[in-house]
Amino acid sequence: MFGTMMDVPLLVSSILKHAEAYHGDAEVVSATVEGGFHRYSYADLAKRSRQLANALARLGLKTGDRVGTLAWNGYRHMELYYGVSGSGFVCHTINPRLFREQIAYIIEHAGDSVLFFDLTFQPIIEELADQLKNLKAVVAMADAAHMPKSAILDEKLPGLKCYEILIAAEPDNFDWPTFDENIASGLCYTSGTTGDPKGVLYSHRSCVLHAMAINAPDALGLSANDVVCPIVPMFHVNAWGLPFAAPMVGAKLVLPGARLDGASLYALFEAEGVSFTAGVPTVWLGLLDWMDDHAKEFNFLKRVVIGGSAVPAIMISRFHHKGVEVRQAWGMTETSPLGLSAALKPKHHALSAEDRLALECKQGRPPFGMEFRVVDGEGREVAHDGKSFGSMLVRGPWVAAAYFNAAPNSAHEQHPGWFNTGDVVTIDKDGFIQIVDRTKDVVKSGGEWISSIDLENIAQAHPDIQEAAIVARPDTRWGERPVLVAVLKPGAIFSRADMRAHYEGKVSKWCVPDDVVIVSELPHTSTGKLSKKDIRQIVSEGLGEAFTDLGS
Amino acid sequence: MFGTMMDVPLLVSSILKHAEAYHGDAEVVSATVEGGFHRYSYADLAKRSRQLANALARLGLKTGDRVGTLAWNGYRHMELYYGVSGSGFVCHTINPRLFREQIAYIIEHAGDSVLFFDLTFQPIIEELADQLKNLKAVVAMADAAHMPKSAILDEKLPGLKCYEILIAAEPDNFDWPTFDENIASGLCYTSGTTGDPKGVLYSHRSCVLHAMAINAPDALGLSANDVVCPIVPMFHVNAWGLPFAAPMVGAKLVLPGARLDGASLYALFEAEGVSFTAGVPTVWLGLLDWMDDHAKEFNFLKRVVIGGSAVPAIMISRFHHKGVEVRQAWGMTETSPLGLSAALKPKHHALSAEDRLALECKQGRPPFGMEFRVVDGEGREVAHDGKSFGSMLVRGPWVAAAYFNAAPNSAHEQHPGWFNTGDVVTIDKDGFIQIVDRTKDVVKSGGEWISSIDLENIAQAHPDIQEAAIVARPDTRWGERPVLVAVLKPGAIFSRADMRAHYEGKVSKWCVPDDVVIVSELPHTSTGKLSKKDIRQIVSEGLGEAFTDLGS
Repeated sequence: MFGTMMDVPLLVSSILKHAEAYHGDAEVVSATVEGGFHRYSYADLAKRSRQLANALARLGLKTGDRVGTLAWNGYRHMELYYGVSGSGFVCHTINPRLFREQIAYIIEHAGDSVLFFDLTFQPIIEELADQLKNLKAVVAMADAAHMPKSAILDEKLPGLKCYEILIAAEPDNFDWPTFDENIASGLCYTSGTTGDPKGVLYSHRSCVLHAMAINAPDALGLSANDVVCPIVPMFHVNAWGLPFAAPMVGAKLVLPGARLDGASLYALFEAEGVSFTAGVPTVWLGLLDWMDDHAKEFNFLKRVVIGGSAVPAIMISRFHHKGVEVRQAWGMTETSPLGLSAALKPKHHALSAEDRLALECKQGRPPFGMEFRVVDGEGREVAHDGKSFGSMLVRGPWVAAAYFNAAPNSAHEQHPGWFNTGDVVTIDKDGFIQIVDRTKDVVKSGGEWISSIDLENIAQAHPDIQEAAIVARPDTRWGERPVLVAVLKPGAIFSRADMRAHYEGKVSKWCVPDDVVIVSELPHTSTGKLSKKDIRQIVSEGLGEAFTDLGS
Repeated sequence: MFGTMMDVPLLVSSILKHAEAYHGDAEVVSATVEGGFHRYSYADLAKRSRQLANALARLGLKTGDRVGTLAWNGYRHMELYYGVSGSGFVCHTINPRLFREQIAYIIEHAGDSVLFFDLTFQPIIEELADQLKNLKAVVAMADAAHMPKSAILDEKLPGLKCYEILIAAEPDNFDWPTFDENIASGLCYTSGTTGDPKGVLYSHRSCVLHAMAINAPDALGLSANDVVCPIVPMFHVNAWGLPFAAPMVGAKLVLPGARLDGASLYALFEAEGVSFTAGVPTVWLGLLDWMDDHAKEFNFLKRVVIGGSAVPAIMISRFHHKGVEVRQAWGMTETSPLGLSAALKPKHHALSAEDRLALECKQGRPPFGMEFRVVDGEGREVAHDGKSFGSMLVRGPWVAAAYFNAAPNSAHEQHPGWFNTGDVVTIDKDGFIQIVDRTKDVVKSGGEWISSIDLENIAQAHPDIQEAAIVARPDTRWGERPVLVAVLKPGAIFSRADMRAHYEGKVSKWCVPDDVVIVSELPHTSTGKLSKKDIRQIVSEGLGEAFTDLGS
């Protein structure tokens, strides 16, 4: 027997309609690519999104067609979020930081019909022009005065369109269509370190539920009284959902554009009264350092959400000293992204400052809607003791069940109904999860899992070591054993005995690496992470200077 | 094209599973009917709900079967909420404050298979025993030691079951079934003043979305750091959704049972550290008066949500003086219930205290998900100026589209896709809605709508008037004209001229009532409201003492 409630689908357009109807005068402020600031209201955003929807219809797009964007956080990108998805098309945000070949691959794989780009990305468009000439339209996100002057584009993309001219021609009335909430609304490719990028095809339902979930107080908790500045880019995982969550509650939205250095961010936060922001640790390091150098304090900022990579304890402390509440959050492209947030519970307030900080350094606990399992190699749930390691599986209405237009992937297939995040984690009795390693990097020794990250952090603290990596080496008795691969500081010497002495008392005896291999340089990926695959090769092929036969 | 996201339905059982997994040790404290307090955790709640689910299955219930409850806010009622709905049955909460005939009607109309009752309601069960003897089971919510001793029950319901014995026999493992989220989860009848009670059949989807929506900071905004005490009863509109919203975020839950007087509530709030509560104005009047009489202050309470009827400004001020934030909220059985909450916006903080208070006295603005239209007699949207009157229509995923097992109703049919709330309201440019009257009570004079409530409030302020009502009298020229019907204070005299003088300058000339009719008593409904139908009859039949021919 069904309930007698209204069948009202959860659609992205309903967020815009809500913002216009009940928060029409709330501001959207953008630092523009052209220079200077642009200000308007949610009512203006709604009006121009409707003009854009009319323009897209005139281009002959059909439901489900993909529209690519290469753009910073700004008002025109917001109009694309709503104008494209609201029309029943798919807003495909492209990460301009990827390699050109990856961008070319993604546009091809997504089958984008139209591509919009911010002026910053003119070089990418010029380079990919041959690939783009058969699209229905390529549109520069600019007014007539700022259109790119480019001989390459004139020759290869003579039909290049101007955003402002495109929408100026259109009426501002448009009835957002109503359709099944499971229809695709957005597409974002993971910048995976191995293999081709993989696309996650979000639905209207997943976007709206995710935005509702992150607005719970223990997640991001936005209100109409917040001034929200997403530093995390709209070109990757929907800027953590903030372009949906902020209009959903009528919060003023401040969009930082391309200038993310400390000086620019500080000036923006102070000028616009930003109370809430979100971004990766690197950005905050730049901001905090700049503020220290210039003896500045925050006058408005109250809360910062940090994610993307593990948050150093010192960063949390530095924000606390500036009167700002820090909340670590974890997610990935496949989880929309929010899966965890490190909001303390009442009982935690009685802990020592040090213990509280340790908890805040964990990735956090799930909001309602996200379910986690932490399982060992046999798929059995590990103890929720904050110590036992296991693979982190997740399920929920905003978790990907498959990749777009791709063969079934082991991450989805291995544990039916669950997505294997590829992270090795601990979970405590309160549901606080801490990532200790990536599944492929953990060292599986005699049935126990050893965190490569833990061992690396310890090695890194040795005064003679410049950079350290831990990788697994096959072992006939134990399956795998850890090996330390290190770059030494100039002139330093570091033996296997030194290594053993350094680890002594810091980890269990069986976790101490068997060997140390000295190299002059460690290989990194394009995004600056250690390339464990290449480091394993160094060890297996006996490259580097091994200390196996030295010392005791 | 559909998104590639997981198909995870929104089910009531998922709330309980979340609470158990991530907030297993958060407390549920209940003031019991037997006397004293009962304490356990969400993990215990989950365990006993599973035992109950096994017991219900053993009784032979099938998906969609209705299970009635006659119970206060307490832990066993929580177990019924989850055990019944989680199993795919319908938790039918019955309002014990209704007339016996209405309760009998409701049980019959709902087709309840099983009925659970708190000991307080033994007299109701005795009275309805003949009707109940064919149910699959009638269960007293008690342990063996507290089972009712009743010759009537022994004779008429010899199979009366004991809750604790029923569930003690069951294992505590049970896999909550997965099904379509539109399946019915709960049933609640409106205590309408006219006609038979009408049932609203909630779905899992509507309950879960409503709980997510009310957890936004500008609605009720619960977090794991709250201690939540719903005074609003679980037997009516799911206690405003708090039995779902609190476990959803892991908030400690304090359930007040049957003792809702000021002394009991104050003691409970202080003993359990209640930070958030919700209820109707009458309850708060009792609490505030008791506190004033005993010179008490709140040590923990931070926020109170008030709804059910308009909140007097003085009540808001009294809570403010005690350091408690007040949020008015509006809803009805048909809206799950939350439709509006009076959370101020940033610009409102610059208003004078008086203007802010006036805004907080409005019913508020919608959370995301609820859409409102305010329309005149021709169905045209009225100006959003905070002055123009119109009928309030609403739509959203937690609004009823029809009544359970009932013929189509004009409230649903009149404006297709919308529910007509039957309220006459104003809406301002920020979406703040204020109820000015019920549609059937407003006086429609010459195309303009006159609020009976406004005119009553003015009349009520006259020193000679004890109680006042305004009703419409048919008028050949204007359609309708307002007439004042009043009870005077002992010995007072009040003429038509007195009335005119009193209204002078307080309302537009054309709003002043044409007549005053003096009566010794005004008729009321069972719930204490003025019975406008009976008062209109007094006027139309020339009962009472009319002053039409007196005065100028």
